[in-house]
Amino acid sequence: MPKEPVEWLGDRLRILDQTRLPQEEAYLDLGRYQDIASAITELKIRGAPAIGVCAAYAVALGGLKIETRARAEFLKELRGIIRTITATRPTARNLFGAVERMLRAAEAGRDTDRIKEALVSEAVKIHAEEAAATGKISQLGAGLIGDGFSVLTHCNTGALATAGYGTALGVIKKAAGQGKKIKVLATETRPLLQGARLTAWELMKAGIPFTLITDSMAGYFMSRGEVDCVIVGAARIALNGDTANKLGTYTLAVLAKEHGIPFYVAAPTTTFDTTLDKGIDIPIEERSPEEVTRIQGVAIAPEGTRVANPAFDITPHHLITAIITERGIIREPYGEGLRELK
Amino acid sequence: MPKEPVEWLGDRLRILDQTRLPQEEAYLDLGRYQDIASAITELKIRGAPAIGVCAAYAVALGGLKIETRARAEFLKELRGIIRTITATRPTARNLFGAVERMLRAAEAGRDTDRIKEALVSEAVKIHAEEAAATGKISQLGAGLIGDGFSVLTHCNTGALATAGYGTALGVIKKAAGQGKKIKVLATETRPLLQGARLTAWELMKAGIPFTLITDSMAGYFMSRGEVDCVIVGAARIALNGDTANKLGTYTLAVLAKEHGIPFYVAAPTTTFDTTLDKGIDIPIEERSPEEVTRIQGVAIAPEGTRVANPAFDITPHHLITAIITERGIIREPYGEGLRELK
Repeated sequence: MPKEPVEWLGDRLRILDQTRLPQEEAYLDLGRYQDIASAITELKIRGAPAIGVCAAYAVALGGLKIETRARAEFLKELRGIIRTITATRPTARNLFGAVERMLRAAEAGRDTDRIKEALVSEAVKIHAEEAAATGKISQLGAGLIGDGFSVLTHCNTGALATAGYGTALGVIKKAAGQGKKIKVLATETRPLLQGARLTAWELMKAGIPFTLITDSMAGYFMSRGEVDCVIVGAARIALNGDTANKLGTYTLAVLAKEHGIPFYVAAPTTTFDTTLDKGIDIPIEERSPEEVTRIQGVAIAPEGTRVANPAFDITPHHLITAIITERGIIREPYGEGLRELK
Repeated sequence: MPKEPVEWLGDRLRILDQTRLPQEEAYLDLGRYQDIASAITELKIRGAPAIGVCAAYAVALGGLKIETRARAEFLKELRGIIRTITATRPTARNLFGAVERMLRAAEAGRDTDRIKEALVSEAVKIHAEEAAATGKISQLGAGLIGDGFSVLTHCNTGALATAGYGTALGVIKKAAGQGKKIKVLATETRPLLQGARLTAWELMKAGIPFTLITDSMAGYFMSRGEVDCVIVGAARIALNGDTANKLGTYTLAVLAKEHGIPFYVAAPTTTFDTTLDKGIDIPIEERSPEEVTRIQGVAIAPEGTRVANPAFDITPHHLITAIITERGIIREPYGEGLRELK
């Protein structure tokens, strides 16, 4: 990675525009919280941990620009800013967790100067903690990846998605870095092709051999015995282990079960939603039909075609072999495992 | 359908160029057998039954242009032509079955004039028989589709794919034509998007309500109880019922099993390969990497990305609820069912 995909510059946030990869490595300087909110909505920055980090910086940026020195008025304005930021995307837990932390940090400040300081330092801390968590996840998860493994992964869960080392892709990179001869099967991840555009780009930079496949090739390669494990990230995990992740994850989990292949989820504990018992309560974002009917601007279906475009699906806990967190690897029953982590 | 997707004009074959749909309804007049062979290789015409029909016309066209009046020499030249035609695509059984029939028809002719007549009439007969078979399949299969069903289908199996009424899509059209309120979920079918481009186009023309989904949404909709059955076509079926069909079919079958949803294959008996006991022996075509890395000319992955592109996968017989043929609906054990059809 030549530069960081997310970099705080004191008065603005610099991000690598993920919508322009792999054709172009273009960085955007975002000086207003609204710019960060738009960048999240438009997927210029995406991936649950990275969204959380950028949302925290958005709150900090928004706070820095509030002019009133009246504490109550300041906090009221800040809550308005937070509403805008949380309205960007509904599914990733990290977004909500990060802004809740930011609000608590603000509320602990005695005056607006200290609140502003606290907001910046809290955002920087969230970023550092998430980055550290992905490093730890990668280290722990790499122990599950055997030498010579063919590892199937979905969507993008690397540095781009986490503003750190990566979750699922971090595990893969770490295992490869340990000298294990890893082969990766990367699903392209329609509709927005995060696998083809972003994971392929990261794996190429990392020098890890990989084969890009369409999403529906996963079953083909599993049936031929060419997949040793599946590892994916997560957008939100309920207390029972049910996991919302990029659309297509559920299908991979069903296929893995059919073939007796381990299916791992790698996610920081900030992705757990301790207010939800089950995955069915996780809100699923429905995105624009054009993401399906147009690929990089080119129409692929007749005008007027009706389209579904849920961005996530829910993988039930019983299909998940283990969840790799920065505090340890947990298995069924996940509720218990999660309590033990705390 | 404004015109036939495949039309014999006596001295040439007119086909609807499927690579230009849905943007353009462009017809091509193919006057040489090599043109038809290229059209098959380049997927201007595709779908196992349609490939069989066009291959038969290619043999006829090739035969008409042979100049020698020496019977043995004629047959030798014809076999050369047939080799070119069978080298186009390896998986669809109908291609091989059709040219074998054409060769037998030629060999039965006493002189080159009669052979030429026989070639044309045999090709026309193959076309008529395949078209009639798809009509019968549609009629029989429609009985499996309940009123109000939400039917998931993959790739394109309609008039375009069959030079007739359609196999899986024929069943859907017939059920809708019987007044049943059918909703269709059509997978886009990466890499070449036959679902988004062709099935959407056919369903729109037929006025049947449908929703286009990416391939990996199938599991999502099944898990929500929104799929009542899956119906697909076939490229080649072994004696035990193992079915080669468009890549992604196997995944749909595994998902259908997981959700207890009937999984139907609709195919004319010409798709059965009576020389193969099991699906594992069916040759799977590997197509160009560019079909994955470029979508309608636009690059979607970094330069140099390694890609897999098998065009078909094998669905084992035990995942198939029933196979709908023009001679009847057969179920496990398929070998027995097939013998009873004959």
